[in-house]
Amino acid sequence: MGIVYVSRKEHFNAAHKLYNPNWTEEKNVEVFGPCANTNWHGHNFDMIVTVKGTPDPETGFVIDLKKLSTLIRRDVIDQLDHKNLNVDVPFMQDKMASCENLVMEIWKILQPTIPKISKTGELYCIKLYETPRNFVEYFG
Amino acid sequence: MGIVYVSRKEHFNAAHKLYNPNWTEEKNVEVFGPCANTNWHGHNFDMIVTVKGTPDPETGFVIDLKKLSTLIRRDVIDQLDHKNLNVDVPFMQDKMASCENLVMEIWKILQPTIPKISKTGELYCIKLYETPRNFVEYFG
Amino acid sequence: MGIVYVSRKEHFNAAHKLYNPNWTEEKNVEVFGPCANTNWHGHNFDMIVTVKGTPDPETGFVIDLKKLSTLIRRDVIDQLDHKNLNVDVPFMQDKMASCENLVMEIWKILQPTIPKISKTGELYCIKLYETPRNFVEYFG
Amino acid sequence: MGIVYVSRKEHFNAAHKLYNPNWTEEKNVEVFGPCANTNWHGHNFDMIVTVKGTPDPETGFVIDLKKLSTLIRRDVIDQLDHKNLNVDVPFMQDKMASCENLVMEIWKILQPTIPKISKTGELYCIKLYETPRNFVEYFG
Amino acid sequence: MGIVYVSRKEHFNAAHKLYNPNWTEEKNVEVFGPCANTNWHGHNFDMIVTVKGTPDPETGFVIDLKKLSTLIRRDVIDQLDHKNLNVDVPFMQDKMASCENLVMEIWKILQPTIPKISKTGELYCIKLYETPRNFVEYFG
Amino acid sequence: MGIVYVSRKEHFNAAHKLYNPNWTEEKNVEVFGPCANTNWHGHNFDMIVTVKGTPDPETGFVIDLKKLSTLIRRDVIDQLDHKNLNVDVPFMQDKMASCENLVMEIWKILQPTIPKISKTGELYCIKLYETPRNFVEYFG
Repeated sequence: MGIVYVSRKEHFNAAHKLYNPNWTEEKNVEVFGPCANTNWHGHNFDMIVTVKGTPDPETGFVIDLKKLSTLIRRDVIDQLDHKNLNVDVPFMQDKMASCENLVMEIWKILQPTIPKISKTGELYCIKLYETPRNFVEYFG
Repeated sequence: MGIVYVSRKEHFNAAHKLYNPNWTEEKNVEVFGPCANTNWHGHNFDMIVTVKGTPDPETGFVIDLKKLSTLIRRDVIDQLDHKNLNVDVPFMQDKMASCENLVMEIWKILQPTIPKISKTGELYCIKLYETPRNFVEYFG
Repeated sequence: MGIVYVSRKEHFNAAHKLYNPNWTEEKNVEVFGPCANTNWHGHNFDMIVTVKGTPDPETGFVIDLKKLSTLIRRDVIDQLDHKNLNVDVPFMQDKMASCENLVMEIWKILQPTIPKISKTGELYCIKLYETPRNFVEYFG
Repeated sequence: MGIVYVSRKEHFNAAHKLYNPNWTEEKNVEVFGPCANTNWHGHNFDMIVTVKGTPDPETGFVIDLKKLSTLIRRDVIDQLDHKNLNVDVPFMQDKMASCENLVMEIWKILQPTIPKISKTGELYCIKLYETPRNFVEYFG
Repeated sequence: MGIVYVSRKEHFNAAHKLYNPNWTEEKNVEVFGPCANTNWHGHNFDMIVTVKGTPDPETGFVIDLKKLSTLIRRDVIDQLDHKNLNVDVPFMQDKMASCENLVMEIWKILQPTIPKISKTGELYCIKLYETPRNFVEYFG
Repeated sequence: MGIVYVSRKEHFNAAHKLYNPNWTEEKNVEVFGPCANTNWHGHNFDMIVTVKGTPDPETGFVIDLKKLSTLIRRDVIDQLDHKNLNVDVPFMQDKMASCENLVMEIWKILQPTIPKISKTGELYCIKLYETPRNFVEYFG
């Protein structure tokens, strides 16, 4: 049996701003423009989690996508949905609330737990859409 | 010549929360759930503005969609994009920051100005997507 | 306050076939082509439910979309999702399993219950996508 | 039985320009901007045709969407797809190649032929997308 | 000339269920939940076939996408569209009707025939969407 | 810090035809079919530019997506939007106006300039959609 890549898409809605506390207000506005707005802005984030592995002959599955969805919701979405990424999310404290940093933190959460719900599967990629036109991918 | 309905889609990203200041914190959470999160959440809003009218024989246009786009951006998007709907937007002060209230306020802004950029066109509908699954329409 | 139209999109996956038991096999194939396939085929259906009404000043809502989503899932999606429309769905018995018939039956279910979760809202439209290119709308 | 609105989405790819031959080159550029480019530009057009009627009890259909698709392709898409709207399309001669004019001409073609393939159906609306953000609707 | 990856998207609608005949009914329901529904359910599947190769200088093509579309429709879509994946499809007999198994079988069909319609192209990836939120990729 | 892949989506509308001047008209029609139409046809092209690199700790960015968008618009979109790819675009002269050739030329333009707006970023991939169903990717 070959390797198959299996993906599940989830979403969450959150507020954030891009603001470096070591900089002046002026420098923040110069670098981040409206993304530095004091009172926040927000997005509908879409997130695609991809797991690679060989299908189990008894189920035909690399991973049970219902279990993967439940895992992503419990460990990631519930920490982020209807939250403020800068203020409400412990694992984003003291980090710039950029998509790049967010996707790397989500990786740290999901990577160790995937093997608990799949015999052969391992986390391969997380793709995070901030908008339909701006998105990031992380492969660990 | 018949009536043609012409539409332009724009988008903006904003933070908001649903919170009634006349209610206790408990009642707000009971009614609005995570939408009442103190530190805000946010969305990528899509907005479709529809103008009805008869096409001008010289241009074939009911309305010049570049002019309509410029108008929407100047009068609406620039007031809302990368803003906090509850805090930063004068015309949403003292109103619940729901899509229903937002779409009615946007109508008040756009309705009088459409005739200034179109001989026959009048505002027909504004459709506002908070998420791809939740949206409102207003016809005045 | 004016009338606002508020919509919620849900989805379900189901099997069906188009087959008139009063006709010969040949006539069914002639009229319905591959849609009459004996062993069924299926679709990812998308359904948009639109409620019209005046927003409640205390919430800014015509209808609480979380409650509407819960209602649609309980009364409609749970009857249809991962089911066979011809065999498993009581309210489609003895009817052609077309989108036209399905949307009218869903209307009968939702129309009386909307007022129970909204003071001013009434069901306005149900839009049912069989595929992204084939869809129906019903206004009662 | 009630009235159901049934829609089919088709697409075509075409070149065009917006250019009024009664105007100077300067005025054309002033009014139409890059849309007046001498050597044309083009779009992937999406077109949604909506027919209203009462479902036939024997089929459950307002209209057979396969027949509707065949009709649209033969009478409209084959005249427009991979064509130049200004040069190659007889029914657009001597008209500005705007979406408004195009949708009204497509209506004239489809309106009389729908009853030939549906007992109760009549053409209700044609929606024409020039881009995902610019579109027109015509109801006759 | 470098390597370019060229993709074509097709779709089909099919019924299936996830059911391991070596297990009890109870175990099937426990593992597969509603996906094990006796009377089937179904999906609109989207399939993206990607071919890699160097463009032919005379055509600018890695592969003629019309020929690729014709090939995919004849060899794959016609075997799957409006069919029951468990019952009607010879190459899925005695296999779990999962997307993972389906994408590997489609690979076996397409991989040897791509070189017959392209001088330099070889099959690179097949991406199969069961729903917009659940999908698999296979690279051979 | 790991490598993150950051993407920005832009679009342009253009006319083109597929026509090899070394061939007879008959051979062009035989090979390219309606894509060889003398008077051109056109598309709404979508283009996704992906840059890989390590995020800058001060901004959290691999690359400032506003700067990337500005760069793509100035150096690529302004050369292609509302243009004829065969006639109006210097870098496509004497080349077949296929997506394969176009994506390789766009690479040559963007690849050297990305490092000027990002400390660690380098161009990784350009994905060019001619239609939602036909697209190409180039990795240099």
